[in-house]
This record gives sequence, C-alpha cells and structure tokens, in this order.
Amino acid sequence: MPGGLLTDLYELNMAASYLHRGMTADATFSLYARTMPPQRGFLVATGLEQCLDALESFSFEEEALAFLATQGFDLRALDAFRDLRFEGEVWAVPEGRIVFADEPLLEVTAPIAVAQLLETILLNRITLHTILASKAARFRLAAGEAELVDFAFRRTHGVDAAMAVARDSAIVGFVGTSNVEAARRYGLAASGTMAHSFIQAFDSEADAFRAFAEDFPRRTTFLVDTYDTEGGVQAAIETIKRLNISRGLAVRLDSGDLGKLSGRAREMLDDADLTQVRIVASGGLDDLEVADLIEGGAPIDAFGIGTQLGVSADAPSLDSVYKLTEYDGRPVLKLSEGKATAPGRKQIFRSADGDLLGLQEETLEGERLLQPVMSGGRRTSKPPSMEELRARFDADLAALPEDVRRLRDPAPRSVEHSVALQSLTAQARSAALRRSGASSPA
Amino acid sequence: MPGGLLTDLYELNMAASYLHRGMTADATFSLYARTMPPQRGFLVATGLEQCLDALESFSFEEEALAFLATQGFDLRALDAFRDLRFEGEVWAVPEGRIVFADEPLLEVTAPIAVAQLLETILLNRITLHTILASKAARFRLAAGEAELVDFAFRRTHGVDAAMAVARDSAIVGFVGTSNVEAARRYGLAASGTMAHSFIQAFDSEADAFRAFAEDFPRRTTFLVDTYDTEGGVQAAIETIKRLNISRGLAVRLDSGDLGKLSGRAREMLDDADLTQVRIVASGGLDDLEVADLIEGGAPIDAFGIGTQLGVSADAPSLDSVYKLTEYDGRPVLKLSEGKATAPGRKQIFRSADGDLLGLQEETLEGERLLQPVMSGGRRTSKPPSMEELRARFDADLAALPEDVRRLRDPAPRSVEHSVALQSLTAQARSAALRRSGASSPA
Repeated sequence: MPGGLLTDLYELNMAASYLHRGMTADATFSLYARTMPPQRGFLVATGLEQCLDALESFSFEEEALAFLATQGFDLRALDAFRDLRFEGEVWAVPEGRIVFADEPLLEVTAPIAVAQLLETILLNRITLHTILASKAARFRLAAGEAELVDFAFRRTHGVDAAMAVARDSAIVGFVGTSNVEAARRYGLAASGTMAHSFIQAFDSEADAFRAFAEDFPRRTTFLVDTYDTEGGVQAAIETIKRLNISRGLAVRLDSGDLGKLSGRAREMLDDADLTQVRIVASGGLDDLEVADLIEGGAPIDAFGIGTQLGVSADAPSLDSVYKLTEYDGRPVLKLSEGKATAPGRKQIFRSADGDLLGLQEETLEGERLLQPVMSGGRRTSKPPSMEELRARFDADLAALPEDVRRLRDPAPRSVEHSVALQSLTAQARSAALRRSGASSPA
Repeated sequence: MPGGLLTDLYELNMAASYLHRGMTADATFSLYARTMPPQRGFLVATGLEQCLDALESFSFEEEALAFLATQGFDLRALDAFRDLRFEGEVWAVPEGRIVFADEPLLEVTAPIAVAQLLETILLNRITLHTILASKAARFRLAAGEAELVDFAFRRTHGVDAAMAVARDSAIVGFVGTSNVEAARRYGLAASGTMAHSFIQAFDSEADAFRAFAEDFPRRTTFLVDTYDTEGGVQAAIETIKRLNISRGLAVRLDSGDLGKLSGRAREMLDDADLTQVRIVASGGLDDLEVADLIEGGAPIDAFGIGTQLGVSADAPSLDSVYKLTEYDGRPVLKLSEGKATAPGRKQIFRSADGDLLGLQEETLEGERLLQPVMSGGRRTSKPPSMEELRARFDADLAALPEDVRRLRDPAPRSVEHSVALQSLTAQARSAALRRSGASSPA
C-alpha cells in the first residue's frame, strides 16, 4: 500500500493549503514522547525500519486521488498530491537503543506539505513498536536466566501488532515466537507445542501425549493441565519412558499456582530421572508475576508470554507527538498549556552523567544518539541485523543504573536541555508571543 | 495474504498430527470471552466480517510451505497442508449486537485440523474489534447529544487497529473519522481540521486562520490553543467577520480546562453573533472525562476522541478463548483450574428476563442470537451495511437496563445455563475425569 491515504484528513487539508500557497520551504518535525508511561524507567527505540519503509513507498495512487476528489479536494490539490514523494532527510535514534521522554526518536526534514502528511503513519509506527519493546524489556528484566517466548499473536491489536511484538520482543532478548509468519519474516525461532484441544480430541490424555511425541519426537512439550496438573505430569513421565525419548522435552503449566506446581513437577521429573525435561510456564503472566516466580525460586526454565506483553496492558499508549520545530530556517514552538514544545533541530548527547538534549549543530561532550538514517529520501545504510539490534539493547541495558532498571517504581532519567537549546527556546518563545496576539492580519 | 502462516506454531503441529493420523472428523470450537473486562457492562460483538474474509481466503501458498519445510514439517504434512481450505460451518452473533461474557461470539465447525489452524487469526480479529467497539460504546453513552469523531489513528497499535477503530466506532454511533483510508474503505465521513504546526508555519495565528478559511471556506475549524485559547478564539472571530463566511464553522479546543474554556469560547462567539459556530473538544479525553464535561453543562458540540479509544486504554485486552466443545459428535470440556469450559454446540436465548445459554438443538423461549453465517465455507448472506449495523446496536443499547449501561461500576448481565447444557456439562465432566487419569495407554 503506497500509503498516501494512511493519514488523517487534517494532514491533507494542511498540505493542500501549503501547496496552494507555494509554501514549499523545508520543515523539521521532531517525534518524541512527552512523558514516560507509568512504571517505565526507560523506553526502547524501535519501529524505525517500518517508518523508513513507509517513507520510501509514500505516494498517491490514482485510486486514492479519485477518492480525494469526492472529499472536496480540487484539481489543483490533486495534481500537487500526485507528484509528492518523500525526498527529505531523517535523523533517528538507532533501533534497540534505550531512550527517555523528551528525547527525539526521529526528526524529519522535508518540504512542509510532505513532512506534514507523514505525521500520522510515523507516529503510529514508532508509538506501537516503542511501547511493545519497552514492555518486553520488563519481562527480560523479570525473567533472569529463564528464556522468554512471545505467545501474544491471538491477543494483539491486529496482525500488524502481532508482527511488531514478535520482532520487538526479539530485540530485547526473547528467544522465540509462536507467530509463524513473524518467524518467517524476521528470521526468528518459531516455537510452540500443543493446546488443550489436542488433549481433548483423543480418548485420553496419555493417548494424546503418545501421539504428539511420536509425531514430534525431537521437540515435545507436554501441556499437562487440561484435567489435573500432577496427573498430567505423571502421564508425560510415563509417555517419555514408554517411548524412550530424551531430546527437546518439556512440560508446560498453563493454570493454577505456577510456583507450587512447577516445584512439584520438577520433583516428579527428577524422581523419574528426567532432569533434562524442562518446565515451561504460561497463562496470562505479567512482568511482576514472572519476577515473583523467579525471585521465589520457581524452577521454571522458560515462559510463554502473551496478552500482557501483546497489548502492553499496564501502559498501552505512549504520549508521543510529532511537532514542528523549524520552518524555513526559523525555529518554532507552541505555548499550549502543559504541552509546550522546544524549537530547532536536536541532538541527544549521552555521557556517564546522563543525557543532555541540545541542538544538532552543537558540539558537546558525549555520544551523539541521533544519527542520519535517510538522505534525499533514501536509506543511508542497510537495515541492521537482529544480532546488531540485540547487541545495542544489551549494551544500553547493561549501562543503566539500578534505579532506572528496577521493575517496581523505576526512576526514569530526566533529560537536561543544553544552554544553547534553552536560549533558542527563550528566543522562539518571544517570537511566538508576538505572533499569537500582537500581529493582526494586515 | 492467504493466511496459512498467520497462526501459532502449535496450531500447525497439532494439525500435522491430526492429518498424519487420519483424524478428519468435524470439531466445533466456540469463541467467547471468559470474563468481562473491568468497567464494562456489556460487549459489542464486532469483527465477524473480518473473520469471514480470513476463512474464505485461508490457504497455504508454495512460499509458506517452503518455509514450513525448514521448520521440521515433512513432505506428508506439507502435502496435506497444501490442500486445506475452509469448507466448514460458522454460527455467529451478528455484528453490532450486545453480548456478555460466556456467550459464544462465533462457533466454527470443520474437520479438526482446519478448525484448529484458524484459532489464532479468529481470536485476534474478534478480540480486537470487540474491545474497540465496546470501548467506543462508552463514549457514545458519555457524550449524550454531542457528536463523536474518531481521532485515534496515530496512537492505535498499527494500521489494522486504526481501520478497526474507525469502523467499530462508527457502528456504535461515531459520526466520522480522521482516518482517510478508513473513510474510503468503509464509506465513513472523513473529518479533520488543522494542527498546531499549521498555525506555527505562518507569521501569525491570524494569518494561518485566514489562509485556511480561504482554502476551505465551507469547512473551517479553527484550532485555537496554539498560543493562548482566548486569543485564538478572538482571532477566529475576527477571521470569520473579515472573510464574511458562515458555513461549517467551528473552533477546536485541545488543551487546558475544557469545561471552562468551552464556556468562555461560547460566550465570546455568541457575543459576536456567531451562534452557529460550533465548539469541538479534543486532547486525550477518556469516556468519564467526556461524561463529566457533558454533565457539567460544557457547551461542547463535538468531541475528537483519540488515544483512550484507540487502545481501549483502561481495558486493552479481552479474556477471549477458542475452545473445543465437540469432536466427532462427542461433547468435550477441559477441567483446568479456573478455566473450565462448557461442552457442545451452543445457542444464546435472549428474553426480557436476560440471556440463557443453551444448546443449539434446544427450543427455548427468546430470540436466538447465534445465526448461521457460513456454510460449506461460503457466506450465507451479504455483509450488512453500516446502517444495519448501527440499527442493531441502537436497538440493543436502548433495551439495556440502566445498571448495565451506566459508565461507573456497571453490572454486566450474568448468563444462566439451560438445564440441558448443565446436564451435558455434568456428563462430559464425568467422561473427562475418566479420560484424565484412569485410562492409561494400552
């Protein structure tokens, strides 16, 4: 889908107006989270590749223009839309990096009509991915040495979101996904076992276990809670012994007191000399429940994580915005109550002391987080591999102080503004105050 | 996308096993919410058309089969997958109807391998739509006579979800959407005005207002809070007078105390003899905030609703399941702790006394909510029009008692089981208990 219509009507209104008036100067828009969601010490920047795809394919097809003709856009506007492509510049925080509120994830510079039209899709993609990766990171922190697998597909908000959660959770260290199309698309390990319905379709649980183990002798996970968990573990043990299989074996607990049941299952398996059989837990677990199980010493080797991850249930939205910060070389801001913005093209300078938000042209101490990723509408480099993405996240996570990492009431870093940015803000504010009232139409 | 891979790996494992073993008997799966989400008195059944699309197009392309070959599926399994199509039967609650926990939204009957493979996508679609429509219905209840417009696209969990929220909110009475592609796809009214960036791109707010009003003289909504709301309203008034325009005019408030500011804006507009200029409010409003504004007498004519609707922020997930209830003519259930299921093909009987969940074959009093919608894998009727969907919802909403409708601590209906269903449950439970332990592998 070329995406011209994947936008809000007001973007088209504004673009048409700009184009009518010959307002073709470059605008810079900055995409960032205004505030941190509750219970998030940090955000994981993701979704950039999906944004760059959208920018590269942005255009209006004839069918889209025909629809717009029915919505009151005149021929002059349609002709102008027909020629639009994204040929601008993008700076962004590389995917997998850890960021905080107020830090631009993406800055787009292009003729104002085009940059404006892209607002909706860029916000949609960055917001979704960053929410999901940031939630997935909490599971990573909760699970300790245990493995994590994405089981969220059935409960995500659509198929897009299912693909996103598979990819974003992989970036922060999940080892696999149940989502087969996502595994194919992103080169992830597909993971999965059996459902309760499989057990129920056979005459007995033992018959079902035997059938499955015969059909998948090298990757059998027995779902043991359809009727009674201890009985299920016993049936799994008997099946393993009877078929004399030994590789890729696990039992999965999906209901009840997982701490107690995992302990009992481990005991039964060990008593049967099946120490190599792993224990997988699932069933609507949230990050703090995983942390409690791990801290409580539950012998769980892997977690299947679904709904709570898939919708980022405790913080399903991000206060993300896409704000004009410069037009035609002039820094701009808005003064709206509680929603004021900072002007100019930005850079994030990261040092051991924390992050400083400054201007792109500044030379300050620290690593520069915003990188040029698109120039003349083309990517400046190939998409990173999953290994690179994981390495970026791992390095940033390792560098986080304990109070930012902790799961309960984390303390996100606040980001200081450089002297130059503060001074530009003051200057732009005076100009905005002048524009708001004093100057009336000629 | 034909959708064979839009599933969880375990569905493919189970399907392969069923097909290997010649287990081709019909299975019935029932899709329902186990519990009501917090603060929901009722659910609005939606997503059925998207499910029927998925069923009609379900198949495996060669590319999908080639991927599965790399995942350990043998030639026999791949050959069996290649021929699979959905040729089964579907009963469902028509979209737009109001339902409660425990009531099947959809029942699928097909050879078990196919019915199993469809679990993931059917759950994903019904869950997403039903969550969104149910949240949107709360805004409808909150807004009274004020109009509602969907502004959620930028904050939904992906593009799928943006299309869903536009459609689902329209079903429950929203009058328009900002989402242009959704407007095209579903025949909705596209709605939108200007962003703060438009104001900022001009030398003054007044210049921006005049430009926009000249370009869209029959549909101008002035966004008045970029610098200072009262000053913005004044600038809008001056622009309207200067250009002598009178049709389709509004001011939009997007920040600050909307109750107070809307009152002041109304006063200023009325004093300027602009009683026909409407007041639109937006800015991250949730349903209870809308209710408070309306109950407080704020003179707001329309609300633009974004994030809180788009992610159903207070209840972003639904405890939806797809459970095997009959296989090869035999009713089945599972006994898992806290997750027990009810066996057999169902029917919902609705009468003035409430809803009764019974068996499909029963003849009880009341309206039968589950209707046959697909037979032999084909739709039994054309998709309903938006007018029909709206009429269904309106009729059901009007019939709801006050305690189910109310926004604060609503009391959802609990659904009784018929005597025949209770008796079948008892019988299936005994059989399940026998299968769980007593019978060991021969």
